[in-house]
Amino acid sequence: MRKIKLGIIGTGLAARNLHLPALLRLKNKFEITAVCNHTEKKAKEFSQLVGGVPYYLDYKEMLKNPNIDAVDIALPIELNYEVTLDALKSGKHVILEKPLAASIDDAKKLLKAEQKYGMTTLLAENFRYRKVFMKAKQLIENGIIGKPYSLAWNLYYNVDEHNSYAETKWRKFNKYPGGFLLDAGVHNIAAIRYLFSEFKSVTTSVKTVNPKIGTHDTMSLQFDLENGMNGVYNIYFSVKGHWEDQLLIFGSRGTIQILNHKLHVKYEGKPEKIYDMTDDNGYYREFLDFYNGIVNRKKIFSSFTEGYKDLQVVLKSFESAELKKKINL
Amino acid sequence: MRKIKLGIIGTGLAARNLHLPALLRLKNKFEITAVCNHTEKKAKEFSQLVGGVPYYLDYKEMLKNPNIDAVDIALPIELNYEVTLDALKSGKHVILEKPLAASIDDAKKLLKAEQKYGMTTLLAENFRYRKVFMKAKQLIENGIIGKPYSLAWNLYYNVDEHNSYAETKWRKFNKYPGGFLLDAGVHNIAAIRYLFSEFKSVTTSVKTVNPKIGTHDTMSLQFDLENGMNGVYNIYFSVKGHWEDQLLIFGSRGTIQILNHKLHVKYEGKPEKIYDMTDDNGYYREFLDFYNGIVNRKKIFSSFTEGYKDLQVVLKSFESAELKKKINL
Repeated sequence: MRKIKLGIIGTGLAARNLHLPALLRLKNKFEITAVCNHTEKKAKEFSQLVGGVPYYLDYKEMLKNPNIDAVDIALPIELNYEVTLDALKSGKHVILEKPLAASIDDAKKLLKAEQKYGMTTLLAENFRYRKVFMKAKQLIENGIIGKPYSLAWNLYYNVDEHNSYAETKWRKFNKYPGGFLLDAGVHNIAAIRYLFSEFKSVTTSVKTVNPKIGTHDTMSLQFDLENGMNGVYNIYFSVKGHWEDQLLIFGSRGTIQILNHKLHVKYEGKPEKIYDMTDDNGYYREFLDFYNGIVNRKKIFSSFTEGYKDLQVVLKSFESAELKKKINL
Repeated sequence: MRKIKLGIIGTGLAARNLHLPALLRLKNKFEITAVCNHTEKKAKEFSQLVGGVPYYLDYKEMLKNPNIDAVDIALPIELNYEVTLDALKSGKHVILEKPLAASIDDAKKLLKAEQKYGMTTLLAENFRYRKVFMKAKQLIENGIIGKPYSLAWNLYYNVDEHNSYAETKWRKFNKYPGGFLLDAGVHNIAAIRYLFSEFKSVTTSVKTVNPKIGTHDTMSLQFDLENGMNGVYNIYFSVKGHWEDQLLIFGSRGTIQILNHKLHVKYEGKPEKIYDMTDDNGYYREFLDFYNGIVNRKKIFSSFTEGYKDLQVVLKSFESAELKKKINL
């Protein structure tokens, strides 16, 4: 079986903590052949971590290496556009860590470049491959809670300036709109779109409670979906003393409650049924999809177009907050 | 000590389950001297329940009784205006079960009548007298969670057509806007206004999931307050299998969580402090305030004006849902 020769551009937290464990499980499908970080120490360290492969400080140099079929791009958001474009130009397949880009304009240009260069592309949005949502979709489509009519997703976290993600300079001094809200918000939007339908309208309020983790960090988003459902999505990163990650999906016959990786099916007067999908974060299936896209020409599930739509909802939400009004998508 | 001679107009669930227990604790301050219900059986039953006092089928007849200083009006919402007006005209003090009226016009006319006739009036909004909120207000004003910046109140209930409140004809076939959402919604709006400040804007989405309990039964309300806080208030009456009554108040230093009558003060990395105010529903203090207003000329805390403002927020919310846009108050 053919192995994809993979270069990793950006060897920070996402590459190390999220992608690498998945790639190690897919050793028979991916071979890491080069890594790149503009800080030599980091590039070297990561190279050693994956068996001493060649490392680069300049991704443009790396893209010239013919021993690379595909690149995994996990960079500060504002670099996504340029680096992805260069990778496609140089004939590499691309798996790009979400969000797609730092602006709608960049995102649109990436969709064009994707068409132009014809390489396999995947927007690495792991929520689109996460088992707990796949299970939820299946249960809902089987009518297990009747007709779903609304949902509420509350994420209350305390990500202070000592958090390893918040500590990174590009997040602290974010050069893209929305700070953590963009970076993290696309996940939940992707899941909602995956489970139900496109967004129809958004009304949003945002705040910056702790500027030390970037701007903004607190968002309350009310929305209508194209399928007639409505809902609320609260994502608060500076909550002190209360931690919550709860998605409630309200149906005419019952409720699905998702607490991180655990799915509860709840009815009136009956014991609830729990599906425990802990430790299935989606990264493995994401890379597997990328592999099948390249090798078997299978259609990629988390396409750049999907990523574009996720991004659009989040950016329209910021626009709603800025203009202080409901925005139709 | 002087006793107030009280006539009760409307002897339904509110009078029996909510007001009567409070009045029995205030026997040295209130004497029930007459009751009224247009259904003789109900009037007679309630009369017997309170010691065989005279009962009336027509409240206008009852208002002629000179052995009544004040009336407690607990009727279907659409009757509040006319009956309250007649009571004030006939020189009775009035304690009126919330919400103030079925429309803003009626509410405005009641405020005028209140001025004109100069009787003591109290809008029976028990949340304004509920201990758990009084405690929360005190703690917040003492800075216990730092600066409050947002709140989220989720009420997910299953009030189906077999619920004793939902079974009442006037709720099932509601002649006032919003059904249960008006009837119950004013409570939470009153508490938010009591705790923080006036509402600045509302954006609302409403649904009727179970028309058997009246229209509507499901509301998601996003708001900004005059003091700069924002928040979400979800009140869903047809939720199957998931019961929740949680108010979260987010502050710069900590979070207050109110689960019905229990108040939790939560900080990072410290055990939470719990104040249990179970069984203090506010009705006792509400009638005590009414008594002190009449006898000692003390200013009434839950005035008709407060009730007007609660009502206004809820009705503006419905308007927001209908017009599908944010409404400024």
